Amino acid sequence: MPALFRKLVVVGVGLIGGSFALALKRAGAVSEVVGIGRSAASLDVAVRRGIIDRIGAADGATLRDADLVLLAIPVGQMAAAMRAIAPHLGADTVVTDAGSTKAGVVAAAREAFPATLSQFVPAHPIAGAELSGPAAATADLYAGRRVVVSPLAETSPAARARVESAWLACGARLSVMSPEAHDRIFATVSHLPHLLAYALVHELCERDNAGELFGFAASGFRDFTRIAGSSPEMWRDIFLENRGALIAELDRYVAKLGTLRARLDAGDGAALERLLEKASRARKDWAVDQDACNDGGG
Amino acid sequence: MPALFRKLVVVGVGLIGGSFALALKRAGAVSEVVGIGRSAASLDVAVRRGIIDRIGAADGATLRDADLVLLAIPVGQMAAAMRAIAPHLGADTVVTDAGSTKAGVVAAAREAFPATLSQFVPAHPIAGAELSGPAAATADLYAGRRVVVSPLAETSPAARARVESAWLACGARLSVMSPEAHDRIFATVSHLPHLLAYALVHELCERDNAGELFGFAASGFRDFTRIAGSSPEMWRDIFLENRGALIAELDRYVAKLGTLRARLDAGDGAALERLLEKASRARKDWAVDQDACNDGGG
Repeated sequence: MPALFRKLVVVGVGLIGGSFALALKRAGAVSEVVGIGRSAASLDVAVRRGIIDRIGAADGATLRDADLVLLAIPVGQMAAAMRAIAPHLGADTVVTDAGSTKAGVVAAAREAFPATLSQFVPAHPIAGAELSGPAAATADLYAGRRVVVSPLAETSPAARARVESAWLACGARLSVMSPEAHDRIFATVSHLPHLLAYALVHELCERDNAGELFGFAASGFRDFTRIAGSSPEMWRDIFLENRGALIAELDRYVAKLGTLRARLDAGDGAALERLLEKASRARKDWAVDQDACNDGGG
Repeated sequence: MPALFRKLVVVGVGLIGGSFALALKRAGAVSEVVGIGRSAASLDVAVRRGIIDRIGAADGATLRDADLVLLAIPVGQMAAAMRAIAPHLGADTVVTDAGSTKAGVVAAAREAFPATLSQFVPAHPIAGAELSGPAAATADLYAGRRVVVSPLAETSPAARARVESAWLACGARLSVMSPEAHDRIFATVSHLPHLLAYALVHELCERDNAGELFGFAASGFRDFTRIAGSSPEMWRDIFLENRGALIAELDRYVAKLGTLRARLDAGDGAALERLLEKASRARKDWAVDQDACNDGGG
Protein backbone atom coordinates (compact mmCIF):
# COMPACT_ATOMS: atom_id res chain seq x y z
CA MET A 1 0.00 0.00 0.00
CA PRO A 2 1.50 3.36 -0.94
CA ALA A 3 1.94 5.93 1.82
CA LEU A 4 -0.79 8.54 2.19
CA PHE A 5 1.81 11.22 1.39
CA ARG A 6 4.92 10.81 -0.71
CA LYS A 7 6.54 14.03 0.42
CA LEU A 8 5.72 16.15 3.46
CA VAL A 9 7.38 19.52 4.05
CA VAL A 10 7.29 20.83 7.60
CA VAL A 11 7.94 24.55 7.98
CA GLY A 12 9.01 25.00 11.60
CA VAL A 13 10.26 21.71 13.01
CA GLY A 14 9.43 22.26 16.67
CA LEU A 15 7.18 20.40 19.06
CA ILE A 16 4.09 20.70 16.86
CA GLY A 17 5.61 20.19 13.43
CA GLY A 18 8.05 17.57 14.66
CA SER A 19 5.37 15.55 16.41
CA PHE A 20 3.21 15.66 13.27
CA ALA A 21 6.10 14.23 11.23
CA LEU A 22 6.89 11.55 13.81
CA ALA A 23 3.24 10.48 14.09
CA LEU A 24 2.82 10.21 10.32
CA LYS A 25 6.07 8.30 10.00
CA ARG A 26 5.06 5.85 12.70
CA ALA A 27 1.70 5.38 10.98
CA GLY A 28 3.48 4.63 7.69
CA ALA A 29 1.57 7.56 6.21
CA VAL A 30 4.51 9.45 4.73
CA SER A 31 7.53 8.41 2.64
CA GLU A 32 9.74 11.47 2.95
CA VAL A 33 9.81 14.44 5.31
CA VAL A 34 11.72 17.62 4.54
CA GLY A 35 12.17 20.33 7.14
CA ILE A 36 12.46 24.09 6.71
CA GLY A 37 13.25 26.38 9.61
CA ARG A 38 14.99 29.44 10.99
CA SER A 39 17.29 27.57 13.33
CA ALA A 40 20.04 25.37 11.90
CA ALA A 41 20.53 23.85 15.37
CA SER A 42 16.87 22.82 15.57
CA LEU A 43 16.95 21.35 12.07
CA ASP A 44 20.05 19.35 12.99
CA VAL A 45 18.28 17.97 16.06
CA ALA A 46 15.32 17.07 13.85
CA VAL A 47 17.57 15.19 11.42
CA ARG A 48 19.41 13.38 14.21
CA ARG A 49 16.11 12.33 15.83
CA GLY A 50 14.76 11.05 12.50
CA ILE A 51 11.94 13.60 12.54
CA ILE A 52 12.94 14.89 9.11
CA ASP A 53 14.90 13.07 6.43
CA ARG A 54 16.61 16.17 5.18
CA ILE A 55 16.77 19.94 5.42
CA GLY A 56 15.15 21.95 2.65
CA ALA A 57 14.47 25.58 1.83
CA ALA A 58 11.63 27.75 0.56
CA ASP A 59 12.45 26.90 -3.05
CA GLY A 60 11.13 24.87 -5.96
CA ALA A 61 13.36 21.86 -5.27
CA THR A 62 11.83 21.45 -1.85
CA LEU A 63 8.24 22.45 -2.54
CA ARG A 64 7.26 21.77 -6.15
CA ASP A 65 6.65 18.04 -5.68
CA ALA A 66 5.44 18.20 -2.06
CA ASP A 67 2.07 16.56 -1.39
CA LEU A 68 1.57 18.42 1.85
CA VAL A 69 3.12 21.45 3.52
CA LEU A 70 2.52 22.04 7.22
CA LEU A 71 3.17 25.52 8.55
CA ALA A 72 3.99 24.95 12.23
CA ILE A 73 5.32 28.36 13.23
CA PRO A 74 4.11 31.20 15.48
CA VAL A 75 1.09 32.86 13.90
CA GLY A 76 2.94 36.15 13.60
CA GLN A 77 5.31 34.51 11.10
CA MET A 78 2.62 32.92 8.96
CA ALA A 79 2.21 35.76 6.45
CA ALA A 80 5.94 35.96 5.68
CA ALA A 81 6.27 32.17 5.43
CA MET A 82 3.28 31.96 3.09
CA ARG A 83 4.72 34.67 0.85
CA ALA A 84 8.04 32.82 0.78
CA ILE A 85 6.62 29.45 -0.23
CA ALA A 86 3.77 30.62 -2.52
CA PRO A 87 5.80 30.96 -5.77
CA HIS A 88 7.25 27.47 -5.40
CA LEU A 89 4.21 25.33 -4.61
CA GLY A 90 3.18 22.62 -7.05
CA ALA A 91 -0.30 22.51 -8.54
CA ASP A 92 -1.25 19.56 -6.32
CA THR A 93 0.48 20.70 -3.14
CA VAL A 94 -1.93 21.00 -0.23
CA VAL A 95 -0.96 23.57 2.42
CA THR A 96 -2.18 23.48 5.99
CA ASP A 97 -1.17 25.20 9.22
CA ALA A 98 -1.14 24.49 12.92
CA GLY A 99 -1.67 28.04 14.10
CA SER A 100 -3.38 28.73 17.41
CA THR A 101 -5.53 31.48 15.88
CA LYS A 102 -7.33 31.20 12.61
CA ALA A 103 -8.71 34.54 11.39
CA GLY A 104 -5.28 36.12 10.92
CA VAL A 105 -3.87 33.02 9.25
CA VAL A 106 -6.81 32.95 6.85
CA ALA A 107 -6.31 36.62 5.99
CA ALA A 108 -2.62 35.96 5.33
CA ALA A 109 -3.48 32.97 3.12
CA ARG A 110 -5.92 35.06 1.08
CA GLU A 111 -3.08 37.48 0.41
CA ALA A 112 -0.40 34.90 -0.30
CA PHE A 113 -2.38 32.27 -2.22
CA PRO A 114 -4.94 34.22 -4.25
CA ALA A 115 -4.96 31.70 -7.11
CA THR A 116 -4.56 28.50 -5.07
CA LEU A 117 -6.72 29.13 -2.04
CA SER A 118 -8.61 25.90 -2.79
CA GLN A 119 -5.46 24.03 -1.71
CA PHE A 120 -5.22 25.73 1.71
CA VAL A 121 -6.78 24.06 4.76
CA PRO A 122 -6.60 26.01 8.04
CA ALA A 123 -6.29 23.78 11.09
CA HIS A 124 -5.32 23.86 14.76
CA PRO A 125 -4.22 20.84 16.77
CA ILE A 126 -5.22 21.26 20.44
CA ALA A 127 -2.00 19.95 21.85
CA GLY A 128 1.22 21.32 23.13
CA ALA A 129 2.92 21.86 26.37
CA GLU A 130 5.23 24.27 28.07
CA LEU A 131 7.90 22.28 26.23
CA SER A 132 8.97 23.32 22.76
CA GLY A 133 11.47 22.48 20.06
CA PRO A 134 12.20 19.28 18.13
CA ALA A 135 13.79 17.62 21.16
CA ALA A 136 10.33 17.55 22.77
CA ALA A 137 8.53 16.19 19.70
CA THR A 138 6.83 12.82 20.09
CA ALA A 139 4.73 10.55 17.88
CA ASP A 140 2.12 10.36 20.65
CA LEU A 141 1.44 14.08 21.03
CA TYR A 142 -1.83 14.01 19.10
CA ALA A 143 -3.20 10.65 20.26
CA GLY A 144 -6.79 11.28 21.34
CA ARG A 145 -6.40 15.07 21.00
CA ARG A 146 -8.75 17.30 19.10
CA VAL A 147 -7.78 19.02 15.88
CA VAL A 148 -9.98 21.87 14.72
CA VAL A 149 -10.25 22.12 10.93
CA SER A 150 -11.56 25.47 9.67
CA PRO A 151 -12.03 25.10 5.90
CA LEU A 152 -12.71 28.18 3.80
CA ALA A 153 -15.58 28.41 1.34
CA GLU A 154 -12.86 28.13 -1.32
CA THR A 155 -11.12 25.05 0.17
CA SER A 156 -11.53 22.03 -2.11
CA PRO A 157 -13.14 18.95 -0.52
CA ALA A 158 -10.20 16.86 -1.73
CA ALA A 159 -7.64 19.10 -0.03
CA ARG A 160 -9.64 19.12 3.18
CA ALA A 161 -9.93 15.33 3.10
CA ARG A 162 -6.16 15.01 2.67
CA VAL A 163 -5.46 17.13 5.72
CA GLU A 164 -8.12 15.39 7.78
CA SER A 165 -6.70 11.99 6.86
CA ALA A 166 -3.27 13.13 8.03
CA TRP A 167 -4.56 14.17 11.44
CA LEU A 168 -6.58 10.97 11.76
CA ALA A 169 -3.39 9.04 11.02
CA CYS A 170 -1.81 10.92 13.94
CA GLY A 171 -4.56 9.54 16.19
CA ALA A 172 -6.39 12.86 16.56
CA ARG A 173 -10.13 13.54 16.72
CA LEU A 174 -11.51 16.12 14.29
CA SER A 175 -13.79 19.10 14.88
CA VAL A 176 -14.89 21.45 12.13
CA MET A 177 -15.83 25.09 12.66
CA SER A 178 -15.38 28.49 11.04
CA PRO A 179 -12.20 30.48 11.75
CA GLU A 180 -14.29 33.06 13.63
CA ALA A 181 -15.95 30.48 15.87
CA HIS A 182 -12.55 28.92 16.51
CA ASP A 183 -11.04 32.22 17.59
CA ARG A 184 -13.93 33.06 19.92
CA ILE A 185 -13.83 29.66 21.64
CA PHE A 186 -10.07 29.63 22.09
CA ALA A 187 -10.02 33.20 23.34
CA THR A 188 -12.17 31.87 26.19
CA VAL A 189 -10.64 28.51 27.03
CA SER A 190 -7.00 29.08 26.09
CA HIS A 191 -5.88 32.62 25.30
CA LEU A 192 -7.51 34.26 28.32
CA PRO A 193 -6.11 31.74 30.84
CA HIS A 194 -2.64 32.24 29.36
CA LEU A 195 -2.98 36.03 29.65
CA LEU A 196 -4.18 35.70 33.25
CA ALA A 197 -1.30 33.44 34.23
CA TYR A 198 1.32 35.68 32.64
CA ALA A 199 -0.28 38.68 34.39
CA LEU A 200 -0.10 37.06 37.82
CA VAL A 201 3.53 36.01 37.52
CA HIS A 202 4.48 39.44 36.16
CA GLU A 203 2.63 41.15 38.99
CA LEU A 204 4.59 39.09 41.53
CA CYS A 205 8.00 39.28 39.96
CA GLU A 206 7.97 43.08 39.87
CA ARG A 207 7.61 43.33 43.65
CA ASP A 208 10.38 44.08 46.11
CA ASN A 209 9.63 40.86 48.01
CA ALA A 210 9.30 38.67 44.92
CA GLY A 211 11.79 36.15 46.27
CA GLU A 212 9.86 35.72 49.50
CA LEU A 213 6.55 35.42 47.64
CA PHE A 214 7.83 32.78 45.23
CA GLY A 215 9.36 30.97 48.21
CA PHE A 216 5.92 30.41 49.72
CA ALA A 217 4.14 29.58 46.47
CA ALA A 218 2.98 25.97 46.46
CA SER A 219 1.29 23.43 44.21
CA GLY A 220 -1.82 25.53 43.54
CA PHE A 221 0.35 28.38 42.28
CA ARG A 222 2.50 25.97 40.33
CA ASP A 223 -0.40 24.57 38.31
CA PHE A 224 -2.17 27.91 37.94
CA THR A 225 0.94 29.53 36.47
CA ARG A 226 2.39 26.62 34.51
CA ILE A 227 1.22 28.17 31.22
CA ALA A 228 3.08 31.39 32.06
CA GLY A 229 6.23 29.43 31.23
CA SER A 230 5.07 29.16 27.60
CA SER A 231 6.90 30.78 24.69
CA PRO A 232 6.63 34.60 24.91
CA GLU A 233 7.05 34.97 21.17
CA MET A 234 4.30 32.48 20.34
CA TRP A 235 1.88 33.98 22.84
CA ARG A 236 2.62 37.58 21.90
CA ASP A 237 1.53 36.61 18.38
CA ILE A 238 -1.58 34.76 19.54
CA PHE A 239 -2.65 37.60 21.84
CA LEU A 240 -2.18 40.20 19.10
CA GLU A 241 -3.78 38.13 16.33
CA ASN A 242 -6.84 37.42 18.42
CA ARG A 243 -6.94 40.61 20.44
CA GLY A 244 -10.50 41.49 19.45
CA ALA A 245 -11.99 38.32 20.93
CA LEU A 246 -9.43 38.29 23.74
CA ILE A 247 -10.23 41.82 24.92
CA ALA A 248 -13.93 40.96 24.91
CA GLU A 249 -13.19 37.91 27.07
CA LEU A 250 -10.95 39.90 29.36
CA ASP A 251 -13.66 42.50 29.91
CA ARG A 252 -16.21 39.81 30.79
CA TYR A 253 -13.75 38.26 33.19
CA VAL A 254 -12.89 41.54 34.89
CA ALA A 255 -16.64 42.13 35.32
CA LYS A 256 -16.89 38.74 37.02
CA LEU A 257 -14.01 39.69 39.31
CA GLY A 258 -15.97 42.84 40.13
CA THR A 259 -18.93 40.69 41.20
CA LEU A 260 -16.67 38.59 43.39
CA ARG A 261 -15.06 41.68 44.87
CA ALA A 262 -18.46 43.09 45.80
CA ARG A 263 -19.44 39.85 47.53
CA LEU A 264 -16.17 39.74 49.42
CA ASP A 265 -16.50 43.37 50.42
CA ALA A 266 -20.05 42.81 51.67
CA GLY A 267 -19.00 39.64 53.52
CA ASP A 268 -21.75 37.79 51.64
CA GLY A 269 -20.67 34.25 52.47
CA ALA A 270 -23.81 32.58 51.15
CA ALA A 271 -23.59 34.15 47.69
CA LEU A 272 -19.86 33.52 47.62
CA GLU A 273 -20.28 29.87 48.49
CA ARG A 274 -22.97 29.39 45.82
CA LEU A 275 -20.56 30.74 43.22
CA LEU A 276 -17.66 28.61 44.43
CA GLU A 277 -19.89 25.57 44.67
CA LYS A 278 -21.10 25.95 41.09
CA ALA A 279 -17.57 26.44 39.76
CA SER A 280 -16.15 23.58 41.79
CA ARG A 281 -18.83 21.17 40.59
CA ALA A 282 -18.39 22.26 36.96
CA ARG A 283 -14.63 21.82 37.22
CA LYS A 284 -14.97 18.36 38.72
CA ASP A 285 -17.56 17.25 36.15
CA TRP A 286 -15.29 18.47 33.38
CA ALA A 287 -12.33 16.55 34.80
CA VAL A 288 -14.42 13.37 34.87
CA ASP A 289 -15.47 13.92 31.25
CA GLN A 290 -11.86 14.53 30.25
CA ASP A 291 -10.73 11.32 31.86
CA ALA A 292 -13.53 9.45 30.12
CA CYS A 293 -12.44 10.91 26.77
CA ASN A 294 -8.81 10.06 27.34
CA ASP A 295 -9.59 6.55 28.51
CA GLY A 296 -11.73 6.08 25.42
CA GLY A 297 -8.80 7.00 23.22
CA GLY A 298 -9.05 7.84 19.49
CA MET B 1 12.75 6.53 74.17
CA PRO B 2 9.29 7.85 75.04
CA ALA B 3 7.16 9.26 72.25
CA LEU B 4 7.25 13.04 71.77
CA PHE B 5 3.52 13.14 72.52
CA ARG B 6 1.58 10.72 74.66
CA LYS B 7 -1.84 11.81 73.46
CA LEU B 8 -2.72 13.82 70.35
CA VAL B 9 -6.26 15.02 69.69
CA VAL B 10 -7.08 15.91 66.10
CA VAL B 11 -10.15 18.08 65.61
CA GLY B 12 -11.20 17.55 61.98
CA VAL B 13 -9.75 14.30 60.68
CA GLY B 14 -9.50 15.16 57.00
CA LEU B 15 -6.56 15.34 54.63
CA ILE B 16 -4.61 17.81 56.79
CA GLY B 17 -5.37 16.45 60.25
CA GLY B 18 -5.25 12.85 59.12
CA SER B 19 -1.90 13.26 57.41
CA PHE B 20 -0.47 14.95 60.52
CA ALA B 21 -1.55 11.97 62.63
CA LEU B 22 -0.19 9.43 60.14
CA ALA B 23 3.15 11.23 59.86
CA LEU B 24 3.59 11.46 63.64
CA LYS B 25 2.63 7.81 64.06
CA ARG B 26 5.10 6.71 61.42
CA ALA B 27 7.82 8.78 63.10
CA GLY B 28 7.03 7.11 66.43
CA ALA B 29 6.31 10.56 67.82
CA VAL B 30 2.88 9.87 69.28
CA SER B 31 1.43 7.07 71.43
CA GLU B 32 -2.29 7.66 71.04
CA VAL B 33 -4.40 9.67 68.59
CA VAL B 34 -8.00 10.59 69.31
CA GLY B 35 -10.20 12.15 66.61
CA ILE B 36 -13.06 14.62 66.93
CA GLY B 37 -15.19 15.59 63.96
CA ARG B 38 -18.58 16.48 62.51
CA SER B 39 -18.84 13.46 60.25
CA ALA B 40 -19.26 10.02 61.77
CA ALA B 41 -18.51 8.48 58.38
CA SER B 42 -15.18 10.31 58.16
CA LEU B 43 -14.26 9.32 61.71
CA ASP B 44 -15.03 5.70 60.87
CA VAL B 45 -12.77 5.87 57.85
CA ALA B 46 -10.06 7.40 60.05
CA VAL B 47 -10.36 4.55 62.55
CA ARG B 48 -10.34 1.88 59.84
CA ARG B 49 -7.26 3.42 58.22
CA GLY B 50 -5.45 3.56 61.57
CA ILE B 51 -5.24 7.36 61.42
CA ILE B 52 -6.88 7.66 64.83
CA ASP B 53 -7.02 5.08 67.58
CA ARG B 54 -10.46 6.09 68.74
CA ILE B 55 -13.21 8.66 68.41
CA GLY B 56 -13.50 11.32 71.08
CA ALA B 57 -15.60 14.38 71.80
CA ALA B 58 -15.13 17.96 72.99
CA ASP B 59 -15.14 16.88 76.61
CA GLY B 60 -12.82 16.45 79.55
CA ALA B 61 -12.27 12.73 79.00
CA THR B 62 -10.86 13.43 75.57
CA LEU B 63 -9.05 16.68 76.19
CA ARG B 64 -7.88 16.99 79.82
CA ASP B 65 -4.83 14.76 79.43
CA ALA B 66 -4.03 15.62 75.81
CA ASP B 67 -0.47 16.83 75.15
CA LEU B 68 -1.38 18.40 71.84
CA VAL B 69 -4.61 19.39 70.11
CA LEU B 70 -4.55 20.13 66.37
CA LEU B 71 -7.45 22.11 64.94
CA ALA B 72 -7.59 21.02 61.30
CA ILE B 73 -10.92 22.47 60.20
CA PRO B 74 -12.05 25.27 57.85
CA VAL B 75 -11.08 28.62 59.33
CA GLY B 76 -14.73 29.66 59.56
CA GLN B 77 -15.28 26.92 62.14
CA MET B 78 -12.27 27.73 64.30
CA ALA B 79 -14.02 30.12 66.72
CA ALA B 80 -16.81 27.66 67.54
CA ALA B 81 -14.38 24.75 67.90
CA MET B 82 -12.13 26.76 70.20
CA ARG B 83 -15.08 27.74 72.40
CA ALA B 84 -16.15 24.09 72.55
CA ILE B 85 -12.76 22.73 73.65
CA ALA B 86 -11.62 25.63 75.88
CA PRO B 87 -13.31 24.54 79.13
CA HIS B 88 -11.90 21.02 78.88
CA LEU B 89 -8.21 21.63 78.12
CA GLY B 90 -5.60 20.51 80.62
CA ALA B 91 -3.07 22.93 82.09
CA ASP B 92 -0.29 21.45 79.94
CA THR B 93 -2.28 20.93 76.75
CA VAL B 94 -0.77 22.76 73.79
CA VAL B 95 -3.23 23.82 71.08
CA THR B 96 -2.25 24.51 67.50
CA ASP B 97 -4.13 24.93 64.25
CA ALA B 98 -3.61 24.29 60.55
CA GLY B 99 -5.73 27.14 59.25
CA SER B 100 -4.97 28.74 55.89
CA THR B 101 -5.40 32.25 57.32
CA LYS B 102 -3.96 33.42 60.58
CA ALA B 103 -5.33 36.79 61.71
CA GLY B 104 -8.91 35.51 62.16
CA VAL B 105 -7.72 32.38 63.93
CA VAL B 106 -5.63 34.47 66.29
CA ALA B 107 -8.58 36.75 67.07
CA ALA B 108 -10.73 33.70 67.79
CA ALA B 109 -8.06 32.26 70.08
CA ARG B 110 -7.81 35.52 72.02
CA GLU B 111 -11.55 35.24 72.67
CA ALA B 112 -11.63 31.54 73.48
CA PHE B 113 -8.39 31.13 75.45
CA PRO B 114 -7.97 34.38 77.38
CA ALA B 115 -6.23 32.68 80.30
CA THR B 116 -4.23 30.07 78.37
CA LEU B 117 -3.10 31.96 75.29
CA SER B 118 0.49 31.01 76.12
CA GLN B 119 -0.40 27.43 75.15
CA PHE B 120 -1.73 28.38 71.69
CA VAL B 121 0.60 28.19 68.66
CA PRO B 122 -0.89 29.35 65.32
CA ALA B 123 0.52 27.46 62.32
CA HIS B 124 -0.19 26.74 58.68
CA PRO B 125 1.20 23.76 56.77
CA ILE B 126 1.63 24.66 53.09
CA ALA B 127 0.32 21.42 51.75
CA GLY B 128 -2.91 20.07 50.48
CA ALA B 129 -4.47 19.16 47.23
CA GLU B 130 -7.77 19.17 45.48
CA LEU B 131 -8.30 15.94 47.41
CA SER B 132 -9.83 16.03 50.86
CA GLY B 133 -11.06 13.74 53.61
CA PRO B 134 -9.34 11.03 55.65
CA ALA B 135 -9.26 8.65 52.69
CA ALA B 136 -6.73 11.00 51.04
CA ALA B 137 -4.54 11.39 54.13
CA THR B 138 -0.96 10.18 53.82
CA ALA B 139 2.10 10.12 56.07
CA ASP B 140 4.12 11.75 53.27
CA LEU B 141 1.98 14.85 52.78
CA TYR B 142 4.34 17.16 54.66
CA ALA B 143 7.69 15.71 53.62
CA GLY B 144 9.80 18.64 52.48
CA ARG B 145 6.87 21.07 52.69
CA ARG B 146 6.93 24.37 54.50
CA VAL B 147 4.98 25.01 57.68
CA VAL B 148 4.53 28.60 58.73
CA VAL B 149 4.50 29.09 62.49
CA SER B 150 3.04 32.41 63.65
CA PRO B 151 3.60 32.61 67.42
CA LEU B 152 1.89 35.33 69.41
CA ALA B 153 3.73 37.59 71.84
CA GLU B 154 1.96 35.54 74.53
CA THR B 155 2.93 32.11 73.16
CA SER B 156 5.30 30.32 75.50
CA PRO B 157 8.64 29.23 74.01
CA ALA B 158 8.02 25.70 75.31
CA ALA B 159 4.63 25.43 73.58
CA ARG B 160 6.08 26.75 70.34
CA ALA B 161 8.98 24.28 70.55
CA ARG B 162 6.51 21.41 71.04
CA VAL B 163 4.54 22.33 67.92
CA GLU B 164 7.68 22.90 65.88
CA SER B 165 9.06 19.53 66.93
CA ALA B 166 5.84 17.87 65.77
CA TRP B 167 6.06 19.43 62.30
CA LEU B 168 9.75 18.58 62.06
CA ALA B 169 8.85 14.98 62.90
CA CYS B 170 6.44 15.11 59.93
CA GLY B 171 9.39 16.00 57.69
CA ALA B 172 8.34 19.62 57.20
CA ARG B 173 10.51 22.75 56.97
CA LEU B 174 9.65 25.63 59.30
CA SER B 175 9.19 29.32 58.58
CA VAL B 176 8.27 31.84 61.24
CA MET B 177 6.38 35.08 60.61
CA SER B 178 3.65 37.23 62.12
CA PRO B 179 0.00 36.38 61.41
CA GLU B 180 -0.33 39.61 59.41
CA ALA B 181 2.71 38.88 57.23
CA HIS B 182 1.40 35.37 56.68
CA ASP B 183 -1.98 36.61 55.52
CA ARG B 184 -0.49 39.16 53.13
CA ILE B 185 1.85 36.63 51.52
CA PHE B 186 -0.79 33.96 51.11
CA ALA B 187 -3.32 36.41 49.75
CA THR B 188 -0.83 36.90 46.92
CA VAL B 189 0.46 33.41 46.20
CA SER B 190 -2.54 31.29 47.16
CA HIS B 191 -5.83 33.05 47.87
CA LEU B 192 -5.79 35.26 44.78
CA PRO B 193 -4.98 32.40 42.34
CA HIS B 194 -7.81 30.37 43.85
CA LEU B 195 -10.23 33.27 43.46
CA LEU B 196 -9.11 33.78 39.85
CA ALA B 197 -9.55 30.12 38.96
CA TYR B 198 -13.01 29.92 40.52
CA ALA B 199 -13.97 33.12 38.67
CA LEU B 200 -12.91 31.74 35.30
CA VAL B 201 -14.75 28.45 35.66
CA HIS B 202 -17.85 30.25 36.92
CA GLU B 203 -17.72 32.67 34.02
CA LEU B 204 -17.63 29.76 31.57
CA CYS B 205 -20.21 27.54 33.18
CA GLU B 206 -22.85 30.27 33.13
CA ARG B 207 -22.73 30.58 29.35
CA ASP B 208 -25.19 29.09 26.90
CA ASN B 209 -22.38 27.27 25.09
CA ALA B 210 -20.64 26.05 28.25
CA GLY B 211 -20.59 22.46 27.00
CA GLU B 212 -18.88 23.43 23.78
CA LEU B 213 -16.35 25.60 25.61
CA PHE B 214 -15.44 22.91 28.10
CA GLY B 215 -15.21 20.46 25.21
CA PHE B 216 -12.35 22.43 23.68
CA ALA B 217 -10.55 23.20 26.92
CA ALA B 218 -7.18 21.45 27.02
CA SER B 219 -4.23 20.90 29.32
CA GLY B 220 -3.51 24.59 29.88
CA PHE B 221 -7.06 25.14 31.08
CA ARG B 222 -6.90 21.96 33.15
CA ASP B 223 -3.89 23.07 35.16
CA PHE B 224 -5.00 26.71 35.41
CA THR B 225 -8.36 25.71 36.87
CA ARG B 226 -7.37 22.70 38.94
CA ILE B 227 -7.66 24.69 42.16
CA ALA B 228 -11.24 25.66 41.26
CA GLY B 229 -12.12 22.08 42.17
CA SER B 230 -11.14 22.80 45.79
CA SER B 231 -13.62 22.74 48.68
CA PRO B 232 -16.11 25.64 48.34
CA GLU B 233 -16.70 25.71 52.09
CA MET B 234 -13.02 25.91 52.95
CA TRP B 235 -12.33 28.60 50.37
CA ARG B 236 -15.39 30.66 51.21
CA ASP B 237 -13.99 30.83 54.74
CA ILE B 238 -10.46 31.69 53.60
CA PHE B 239 -11.67 34.39 51.23
CA LEU B 240 -13.87 35.98 53.89
CA GLU B 241 -11.32 35.72 56.69
CA ASN B 242 -8.63 37.32 54.57
CA ARG B 243 -10.77 39.59 52.47
CA GLY B 244 -8.87 42.74 53.38
CA ALA B 245 -5.57 41.51 51.97
CA LEU B 246 -7.33 39.60 49.20
CA ILE B 247 -9.24 42.62 47.90
CA ALA B 248 -6.00 44.62 47.89
CA GLU B 249 -4.35 41.87 45.84
CA LEU B 250 -7.32 41.64 43.51
CA ASP B 251 -7.21 45.38 42.85
CA ARG B 252 -3.50 45.24 42.02
CA TYR B 253 -4.12 42.33 39.70
CA VAL B 254 -7.02 44.01 37.91
CA ALA B 255 -4.78 47.06 37.42
CA LYS B 256 -2.18 44.77 35.83
CA LEU B 257 -4.87 43.35 33.55
CA GLY B 258 -5.69 46.94 32.59
CA THR B 259 -2.06 47.47 31.56
CA LEU B 260 -2.16 44.32 29.47
CA ARG B 261 -5.46 45.34 27.91
CA ALA B 262 -4.03 48.70 26.89
CA ARG B 263 -1.03 47.05 25.25
CA LEU B 264 -3.25 44.61 23.39
CA ASP B 265 -5.56 47.38 22.28
CA ALA B 266 -2.63 49.45 21.01
CA GLY B 267 -1.13 46.41 19.28
CA ASP B 268 2.11 47.08 21.16
CA GLY B 269 3.84 43.80 20.46
CA ALA B 270 7.23 44.87 21.79
CA ALA B 271 5.92 45.92 25.21
CA LEU B 272 3.72 42.84 25.35
CA GLU B 273 6.61 40.53 24.58
CA ARG B 274 8.83 42.17 27.22
CA LEU B 275 6.14 41.51 29.82
CA LEU B 276 5.58 37.90 28.71
CA GLU B 277 9.32 37.32 28.55
CA LYS B 278 9.86 38.54 32.09
CA ALA B 279 7.00 36.46 33.45
CA SER B 280 8.03 33.36 31.53
CA ARG B 281 11.61 33.58 32.76
CA ALA B 282 10.50 34.15 36.36
CA ARG B 283 8.14 31.18 36.17
CA LYS B 284 10.84 28.91 34.76
CA ASP B 285 13.42 30.04 37.33
CA TRP B 286 10.92 29.38 40.09
CA ALA B 287 10.20 25.89 38.77
CA VAL B 288 13.92 25.10 38.77
CA ASP B 289 14.23 26.34 42.36
CA GLN B 290 11.22 24.27 43.38
CA ASP B 291 12.71 21.14 41.88
CA ALA B 292 16.00 21.84 43.63
CA CYS B 293 14.17 22.20 46.96
CA ASN B 294 12.17 19.04 46.46
CA ASP B 295 15.21 17.04 45.35
CA GLY B 296 17.02 18.27 48.41
CA GLY B 297 14.30 16.81 50.61
CA GLY B 298 13.97 17.61 54.31
